[in-house]
Amino acid sequence: MPSALVLLADGTEEMEFTITYDTLVRAGITTQSVYVLTPSFGSTNISPPVAKGSRGINIMPDSYLDATACGPGNHDLLVIPGGATGAATIATNATVQQLVRSYLKNGKYVGMICAGSLAAHTSKLPFQPLTSHPSVKAELEPNFDYSEDSVVVSGNLVTSRGPGTAFPFALTLVELLCGKEKREEVRAPMVFPPGTPW
Amino acid sequence: MPSALVLLADGTEEMEFTITYDTLVRAGITTQSVYVLTPSFGSTNISPPVAKGSRGINIMPDSYLDATACGPGNHDLLVIPGGATGAATIATNATVQQLVRSYLKNGKYVGMICAGSLAAHTSKLPFQPLTSHPSVKAELEPNFDYSEDSVVVSGNLVTSRGPGTAFPFALTLVELLCGKEKREEVRAPMVFPPGTPW
Repeated sequence: MPSALVLLADGTEEMEFTITYDTLVRAGITTQSVYVLTPSFGSTNISPPVAKGSRGINIMPDSYLDATACGPGNHDLLVIPGGATGAATIATNATVQQLVRSYLKNGKYVGMICAGSLAAHTSKLPFQPLTSHPSVKAELEPNFDYSEDSVVVSGNLVTSRGPGTAFPFALTLVELLCGKEKREEVRAPMVFPPGTPW
Repeated sequence: MPSALVLLADGTEEMEFTITYDTLVRAGITTQSVYVLTPSFGSTNISPPVAKGSRGINIMPDSYLDATACGPGNHDLLVIPGGATGAATIATNATVQQLVRSYLKNGKYVGMICAGSLAAHTSKLPFQPLTSHPSVKAELEPNFDYSEDSVVVSGNLVTSRGPGTAFPFALTLVELLCGKEKREEVRAPMVFPPGTPW
């Protein structure tokens, strides 16, 4: 059974986090949330028990960031959600940057959505197709083949745009890890309105 | 500023909960989650600190169910999310049933999505248009004018089908409480894919 980690910080966009996590679980993927400490907590080693999302929902993480336990030897997918403050915390974390590179180097998947795509830049990934929330396009455009597609798959890097693209983003990750049939098996009982383009 | 309560229990579908809560907050609606105790906890008065969602995400509620504080004198909207186990806990709670009736009687809104629509039946609401997740259609069809529309507005009762209809459900609630312009103001930055039918 594949294994996925979804990063979580204070200020993470809780819809992007929740839609991705829940959809991966529905596909039978072992999924864990991993709390990334805000820099101000890092130095004093205080671990808050919950992450406060960008719109105030408090989510208790399954685990805390650890370079070894979170490595590509143990998991198949690393997901970085958006939310301006949460994405800033995650994208500037040196352990996360190292994990992003090592997942891709080892043939594992990395997903970034919304402002989470900033981690592609901070992790110094090479020039390649990528998308993000429009609000951080200017920061990414100089260094990537910037696309406005809802979901962009570039090798093992999967990027997406915002809460409104979180379902097709999550279903694309399911398809990459578990195949097209599983994607449809997960999608159907969610009861999307007729005409939904994913 | 309008005020909304979103109910939460062990087994609540976390996407339906989170999409609704987050979207209401984006519209400037004062939004609180309210934990409904599972019956086995009720008698011994144990209050777990977090609700475990249907796919394992742990969410810390903002408050606990209280008939007076949660009444229609203090709030404009009461939302009941799905998730089979969570919806069963919420729909069979006598305080919730009383709140559903008093919100509607006082001209306030009630939203139910997925298996959450079972609360329309347990609250003994009169025969009227309604939808739900297909998995609980058989329980509702004898007592309601059952529809397969993605969102059904029947007076002040708004019902919907599942995680896949949670965005149009939440945006409909925003429109009813804050108007069409606010709905569009909230929808646009979510970056739905072109062709999304809401």
